[in-house]
Amino acid sequence: MSYSVRMDRITPSAIRGVAKRIASKPGCISFAGGMPDPALFPMESLKAVTNEVIDNEGRFAFGYGSTQGTSALLDVLAKRMVEKEGIAGITPANIGVTTGSQQGIAVAAMLFLDEGDVVVVENPTYLGGVNACRPYGCDFVGVDTDDEGMIIAELEKVLNENPKVKMIYTIPNFQNPTGKAWSLERRKQFMEVVNKYDVVVLEDNPYGEIRFKGEHILPLKAFDTKGQVIYLGSCSKILCPGLRVAWICANPEYVGMYEKVKESSDLQCCEFAQRQVAGFLERYDIEAHIDTIKAAYGTKCEAMLKAMDEHFPEEVKYTRPEGGMFIWVELPEGVDANVVLDDAIEAGVAYVPGEFFYANNGAKNTIRLNFTGETIENITKGVEILGEVFKKYV
Amino acid sequence: MSYSVRMDRITPSAIRGVAKRIASKPGCISFAGGMPDPALFPMESLKAVTNEVIDNEGRFAFGYGSTQGTSALLDVLAKRMVEKEGIAGITPANIGVTTGSQQGIAVAAMLFLDEGDVVVVENPTYLGGVNACRPYGCDFVGVDTDDEGMIIAELEKVLNENPKVKMIYTIPNFQNPTGKAWSLERRKQFMEVVNKYDVVVLEDNPYGEIRFKGEHILPLKAFDTKGQVIYLGSCSKILCPGLRVAWICANPEYVGMYEKVKESSDLQCCEFAQRQVAGFLERYDIEAHIDTIKAAYGTKCEAMLKAMDEHFPEEVKYTRPEGGMFIWVELPEGVDANVVLDDAIEAGVAYVPGEFFYANNGAKNTIRLNFTGETIENITKGVEILGEVFKKYV
Repeated sequence: MSYSVRMDRITPSAIRGVAKRIASKPGCISFAGGMPDPALFPMESLKAVTNEVIDNEGRFAFGYGSTQGTSALLDVLAKRMVEKEGIAGITPANIGVTTGSQQGIAVAAMLFLDEGDVVVVENPTYLGGVNACRPYGCDFVGVDTDDEGMIIAELEKVLNENPKVKMIYTIPNFQNPTGKAWSLERRKQFMEVVNKYDVVVLEDNPYGEIRFKGEHILPLKAFDTKGQVIYLGSCSKILCPGLRVAWICANPEYVGMYEKVKESSDLQCCEFAQRQVAGFLERYDIEAHIDTIKAAYGTKCEAMLKAMDEHFPEEVKYTRPEGGMFIWVELPEGVDANVVLDDAIEAGVAYVPGEFFYANNGAKNTIRLNFTGETIENITKGVEILGEVFKKYV
Repeated sequence: MSYSVRMDRITPSAIRGVAKRIASKPGCISFAGGMPDPALFPMESLKAVTNEVIDNEGRFAFGYGSTQGTSALLDVLAKRMVEKEGIAGITPANIGVTTGSQQGIAVAAMLFLDEGDVVVVENPTYLGGVNACRPYGCDFVGVDTDDEGMIIAELEKVLNENPKVKMIYTIPNFQNPTGKAWSLERRKQFMEVVNKYDVVVLEDNPYGEIRFKGEHILPLKAFDTKGQVIYLGSCSKILCPGLRVAWICANPEYVGMYEKVKESSDLQCCEFAQRQVAGFLERYDIEAHIDTIKAAYGTKCEAMLKAMDEHFPEEVKYTRPEGGMFIWVELPEGVDANVVLDDAIEAGVAYVPGEFFYANNGAKNTIRLNFTGETIENITKGVEILGEVFKKYV
């Protein structure tokens, strides 16, 4: 079979390679994951709402629906965008349902990117975002972040020097992989700069509601005066990922374009799952459930940081996230975390080397640690083991 | 927002335009639909299997799964391909789950089509198939069909004259829009010809199991000695469309490529819905359910044909489908079915003009009639009205 030129641009997932290395060592404590804890899924409420969908919405739930999304879900998501996220003026016409936020990224990539266009990403960033853009032959420019977010001077320089920048892909809350969140001030500064250019901002926000420390910060979309921000929301981390219900929140013109692409991509999302989620958000206590998640993840994050403070050599630096699922670790310059990983797996602990999270030239001394997938006991034990391994390299 | 060049190639759906014209006349009898009859969904079994999924597979059903598909579903689909479709040697490694067959088409388009490539389609064909290919800048060549399927001499001519043919998209069973099914002999001839060229065959088969007359005919995939056929199966017409569970059946190399594209497109299909369908196919009587559908659609088709025989002017020709959901009507040359539609809607009956089902230069005197969406009473009444309208034009 002769594949398209496009396919040469898709690289095999390095993370899968890591998964294979881990799989070869059963019993490994894994900080390599990126999944919500299934033990927290609200099974009783999910069962109740599922039966309500069958009993009350019956044949509609198993039939075709609209490409944009089932209306009850559009309603409740629009309301949520206003009331929880603080984005003024959002109505169902601003919402479109997607199969995971991954589809929100993929549709935007298809809608905007021509060969030679430039996509600006944070350095490092979520690899799935980069991979969704790659088929279209775009280039990537990474912009570094400090503790407050994307460094504005660097961003301006990139925008000035690259007239072909078409899109900025960013995760301002508890980013995968760094766990960093942008400050309010930085968000405002970012939007001021971006306003001056004809670029689209893809604001990917799967983790924003999983804030276990500090106060909610308004999303970029809340400062979007020109309709250039496409906000991506998801139920995967606040409810469960298996229903694959996520959404875009954007100007209605863009929603119309998304519908066209979505129609020829897969016609519509699972109608049944959309109604399960709509029912849950309408009639069950999602806020109480999010509180449960926050408490559990907050405790795990704290335990991991405490163990890191205790066991990691002082040359090793790391972020102190206020939410999300990840901590970012920097080993001293010159240490290759991919090489260290062999030792770590041998000692019984796995992680993902950070270099895989860069669009170009990843920093080899970096590591992503996930704190949601293991028990506190394993977190403490695993970090202690990692500390011992690191000591051999610093 | 500056969209990609790709987006200029996507044309607005003409069928949506028809839908708007129909919506302006409430109470219209509609032969314009293309949806399975929701009254036939096996609600009790669906409820039972849904609760089994929650009770027995619990947190797995709401969590992340694999990109290729949940293993129980891959197993049962592979078995079905062998036992029901007669495709030898199919294992789970040949199967990949998609969100509707629409996604199966879209993924193949992304995988194979470069600008300037040619896609061969039947004349007429399913518009969603064409639309999924359009973004990649390919050209389309339509090949006419007779009562036995694609005309082989025409196909060979096209393949010889167009070295850039990359893909053949076809619906050999009860095609949307014509209702025609290819003969066994024609399928064999087609595969013999296709074997000589480096082209991919997309065999779209959503209606194959809805055969209410005659015997099952082996799919093209059953004669695929070189692994060049990608078979698309779907639960939308044999169970229900709202779960969006469909699949590809292809050589394992292709399944691997599909996984790569699927991963960056939406990561995976709804895990819960996949398990609902797997459970249904494993433990409930899908064959009895398909028999129910066949009986219901067969009766409706017969009623429509009988009314057409009685009320349509003899100058009007039409197909006599042995399965599926559609009948294809040809008015005399020179009559524009799109103009006639205004009169038909005014008289209280809607249909989709056939010209919209061609990749290029649609035949304006053609009409697609759906017989599954209305009651037999309305079918009889609607056809009588249509007959009166047609008499004004012949």
